[in-house]
Order: sequence, then C-alpha cells, then structure tokens
Amino acid sequence: MSSPGSTFRSVHWTGNSVQIIDQTFLPQKEVTIHLTSVGQVWDAIKKLKVRGAPAIGIAGAYGLFLGIRELPEGVFGTFYKECERVADYLNSSRPTAVNLSWALKRILDTMYSQKEKPISELKQLALETAILIHEEDRRLCKAIGEHGAELVPENARILTHCNTGSLATGQYGTAFSVILHAHKKNKVKNVWVDETRPLLQGARLTTWELQKEGIPFTLNIDSAAAFLMQKGEVDMVITGADRITRSGDTANKIGTYNLAVLAHAHNIPFYVAAPYSTIDLNLENGSDIEIELRDEVEITHSGNKRMAPKHISVYNPAFDITPNRLITAIVTEKGVLTPEYKEKFEKLFG
Amino acid sequence: MSSPGSTFRSVHWTGNSVQIIDQTFLPQKEVTIHLTSVGQVWDAIKKLKVRGAPAIGIAGAYGLFLGIRELPEGVFGTFYKECERVADYLNSSRPTAVNLSWALKRILDTMYSQKEKPISELKQLALETAILIHEEDRRLCKAIGEHGAELVPENARILTHCNTGSLATGQYGTAFSVILHAHKKNKVKNVWVDETRPLLQGARLTTWELQKEGIPFTLNIDSAAAFLMQKGEVDMVITGADRITRSGDTANKIGTYNLAVLAHAHNIPFYVAAPYSTIDLNLENGSDIEIELRDEVEITHSGNKRMAPKHISVYNPAFDITPNRLITAIVTEKGVLTPEYKEKFEKLFG
Repeated sequence: MSSPGSTFRSVHWTGNSVQIIDQTFLPQKEVTIHLTSVGQVWDAIKKLKVRGAPAIGIAGAYGLFLGIRELPEGVFGTFYKECERVADYLNSSRPTAVNLSWALKRILDTMYSQKEKPISELKQLALETAILIHEEDRRLCKAIGEHGAELVPENARILTHCNTGSLATGQYGTAFSVILHAHKKNKVKNVWVDETRPLLQGARLTTWELQKEGIPFTLNIDSAAAFLMQKGEVDMVITGADRITRSGDTANKIGTYNLAVLAHAHNIPFYVAAPYSTIDLNLENGSDIEIELRDEVEITHSGNKRMAPKHISVYNPAFDITPNRLITAIVTEKGVLTPEYKEKFEKLFG
Repeated sequence: MSSPGSTFRSVHWTGNSVQIIDQTFLPQKEVTIHLTSVGQVWDAIKKLKVRGAPAIGIAGAYGLFLGIRELPEGVFGTFYKECERVADYLNSSRPTAVNLSWALKRILDTMYSQKEKPISELKQLALETAILIHEEDRRLCKAIGEHGAELVPENARILTHCNTGSLATGQYGTAFSVILHAHKKNKVKNVWVDETRPLLQGARLTTWELQKEGIPFTLNIDSAAAFLMQKGEVDMVITGADRITRSGDTANKIGTYNLAVLAHAHNIPFYVAAPYSTIDLNLENGSDIEIELRDEVEITHSGNKRMAPKHISVYNPAFDITPNRLITAIVTEKGVLTPEYKEKFEKLFG
C-alpha cells in the first residue's frame, strides 16, 4: 500500500453539505464547519476559510449544487439562467481564482449538454460533476505523490516553500503529496519548512499538516535556506507551481526563484510538482507571465499592527519566475519530466 | 561638502544627560527621552530602547559617568571600586554586547592609568573618554561612508539588509553610511530594503532612517531579492558585518549569505561595510565563528500572537557566514579592501 489512506481532506461532501476545515482558525484550532447553502460557500471562499486554488474550485463546485438544488423544476431555459446566476455569484467570491471559474463552467456546460433531460436529473448531474472534479483532483494529487516519491533519497532532508498540501487541494496536495508519499516509504528524515513571507503559509499551514501527518519537520525563516544548504542540511528542494510555460519556466509563490538559485549554487536538486493542467501552452517563456502585485499591508502590517512607517513604497509581488534551466525535474500526475521540457510537453500534449 | 551634516544621532550627550531616540516606539512614533541616571541607562539598554552594538557601547559609556559623577571624592581605592561596581551593573543589561564591556573597560582603564589625579578630575576624564568613544565611532562611520560612496555607481539601485544606520551607531552607520554618503552625491536612485526576518529591523528601522534622511527606498520581503536581481533592478548589495575573520569570511545577520549567493549568480557586486575593529585576527575562517541560536518565539509568534502550531521544531540562527570568495570588497574606515583579504589584513595590522 503506497498511498496514505488516513490523510485528511480539507473539503468533504457529506451527502448533504460541504464539510470544510475553517483555515482562518489554523494553526491555533482545528474547526470543522458544515456549509449547507450557496451563501455559506460564498462566504467561506471570500473569507479564506477555504483556500488553495484546487480546494476553492472543489468547494465552489459543491456550492453550485447547493445553490440550485431547491430551484423550481420548470422549463430548462429558466432553470439554466438561474444556474448561471448562482455561478456568477460564486465567481464573485474570488474573481481571480481560475480553478473556481473553470469548475463552475464545467458543471454548467455538462448540464447544458444534456438539457433534454428532466431538471431533477440535471441537478443530480451537477452534484455528480462536482464529485468527479473532486475525485479527479484527489487522484492526480495521489499520482503526483507516487511519481515524486521515487525521486526522494533515503533519509531525505527536504526543503519546501508555501503550502501545497491537503489544505490547498482535493487531498494529498502537490509538492506536499511527494513528501507525504516519501514519508510512507520511511524516506523522510526532516522537512525544512520555509515560513513563506508575507502570509506565512509555511509557518501556519504546512507545519500544521506535517504535524497532523506525523512527518518530522523544522520551521525556518525563508532567508535561512541558504545557510542550511551551505551546512549540507538539505538534500532536495520541492515546491508547487501556479503556472508552467511551454519552455518549462515556472511561476510560483515569491521566494521560489530564490530557492532555485540557491539549490543550483549548492548542487542540490530542485523539483517542481504540479498537475499537468498547470502547463499553459499558450505561454512560451516566463517573461510572458504577468506577475500579480499584492497589497502592501501584507508586508507593512502584522495583523492590525503596523510594522513599517507610513507613506512608504512597498514592492509585494505574489509570484516569481524560475527559469527552466534551474529545474531538475517537473513532477506531474503523468510522471516525472526532465529537460528539455518543451519537447516533453509537446509529445505529451500532441 | 561630502558629509551629511544634518544626519540625526540616536544617542546624544546634552552636557548633563544622555538623550536617546526610544527605539521601542519606532517606526510608529519618534520619542526622544533623557536619561539622567545610570539606572535609566541600564533600563534603556535592557529594554532595547537603545540597540545596535556601537550605540549600546556609547550609551553605556555615558551611563558610567552618570553613575559615578555624584560619588564621594575620597580615596582612589574606594572610588575606583565603586566605579567597577557601576560598570558591572551596566554590563549586566546586555551581557553579550561586546562593545558595551569594551567601552566600560576603556573608561575604567583610563581612570586607573591616571589614578594620582584628584577624583574630580577622574570623573571629568570618564566623561571625556565617553565623548571620545562616541566621537571616534562617528568619525569611523563617516570615513566608511566616504570610502564606500566611491563604489556606488550613478543612479544606483542598492539592496541592503537589516539596520546598520545612525540608530545602531554613534552616527551615520556602516552600510547605511555608504548609502547616506552616496545619496549626498545624488547617486542613489532607490534603496531596496529587505524587511529582515525575523525581527524586521529593515521594515521597522532602516525604512524609518531612510525616510528621515529623504533617501528614496522600497520595502520588500527578503525572498523577493532574487526576483529583483533577475529583473535587473539591483546594481549592488551592501550589508554590515558582526565579525570578519582573518580570511575575510564574514558573519552577519541571517539572510546575508543568501544575498551573497544571489548577487554572485546575477553578477552583482556584494559589499560588506564594517569598522576595522570587526576584523578578528584570532579567527581563521568562517567555520571558527560560533552561531548564536535565538529563541523560537521570534519565528513562531508575531507580538503576542502565535502564528505556528505548538510543540514544533524551529531553527532560528541569528547570523550566517558569507565566504570571502563571494565578497567583492570590504569597506572599512581605513579604505576599501579587495581580495585577497588575508594579505591586506596582515599588511594593515602589521
């Protein structure tokens, strides 16, 4: 048995409601809540009770079903228009979450493609599609973990950045799934967890997941990674990815490129783990990726407390770009890809 | 006029009291307080109202005078014993601050060397020595700035780490003095300020000093430095140093080695600015320097708020080691030194 069956899920369909771990209480408290209406799902996404692109998409998919299950079962046109209205409403909770709009559109399209069916069956179809989206994500995260675990040496000291675990996905995660599956093979000696400024997803969430799974880890500030590598304390680095271009250049949480440069300078392998859907063949190179600049309060404040002076200039990019030449391999659900990425991607997509 | 005359001082002798900027209120408020007794100086050092090794030494030196100025002017033996007691008391405020014990010992030794003089004159001598210690630090910081400014190109975008300014020294600072003097020559286009986790000296103090001096700057998280370099936004990196070994290997605030690796990978010069007294000829290499591990709460908590789970392992080194091969030049008050450092140091000390 290579897969950790006991791994928790941050989003779960109970048969009647969406059960989530309210991430705004983490890591202080594990609070499970049940969402029984589309309004509650909207609120949970808006207030970051559920976060991580795939997890948001899954919660939103179930939310769409909650929003349409009580609709009158009259003519299709009226019903479908109402479904679109519910989807628009859900989309407004996190307008930039691509997985959310993708999941909602997939459900709408599926219903539309079978519009001749009774409305009651279409409602059921919406739920089945939501469950399928969730299942697919779980399956691909598991496959990423299984493929990636092969790359992990015995007694590995693995450094990771941000949160890429069950909290962010249907289950298992991406880079986190690799760590999880390697741990089940008793290969993990220690995980170095970058705290991941400015929002501290590493310190708050990745530590919590590792603790929950019983995987040994140590928390460090982001800029201590170099010193750890110098001391020979890091065997490999693995991170997730938000977007991978045709050439293999990868956008991920700010600080990832820093790690890739450091890993290269210390002859340490640097891996990226992401579902195949992350590869965007419409983009050639990293320079084609637009970098989201986020609110300066993420850096100037800690909670409500101001840490920096007023009226200052702040640079707060959400992501950075790691060039393909610094990436030892990209782990996807379809297997482990090594350079040259462009050729490999074209073959797999072709 | 190459030196910025208007630069503020964080510690100032008024003729009767020690005037300091209470750094615990920064950057929210600039609060100036007057210390009129040795007890108040002890408290100010203990509570980090004054911080930065040279600034602590200077405040302590004035504090010793405050503690002995009212002593009975009887026999030397009794007087001197009391002076030693006051010095011990001051030393207990920050036991690991080398500059503090060095300054206090220098004043005691100076008085002892002239013990035949009347006690009233010895008291005056203690004050004069404290003023001299302060003046010497100001002069060497100014010299560091003047030498270092020569290295700064026109329209420079300079990246720096931690706080090395007037708040930490007698005036001007070390790496900060280089920036300050380059600014007076209109050479500084932007200073990238690493926030400097975990204690945020960059976000709290360096930003405040730059704002006060009217130098353009932008605050960034530490792990964004790599991305800034990749985008061609950094012309040079300059940091301070806590200890420099015979070979030029340098200990400084955690995150400095990270920057040195990044600068090297992007062909950007990496400079260290420090007084000559920072060079410790008793140490051969960086591996001889002991690294202080600090309390995990600096990382797990923000103020009183816990950010990470309980019962976890945390690695929180105060410093890291930058090997000599990554340092383009070391700026001291005696001039700019380039590799091979060992030969240069031996020549200067010889």
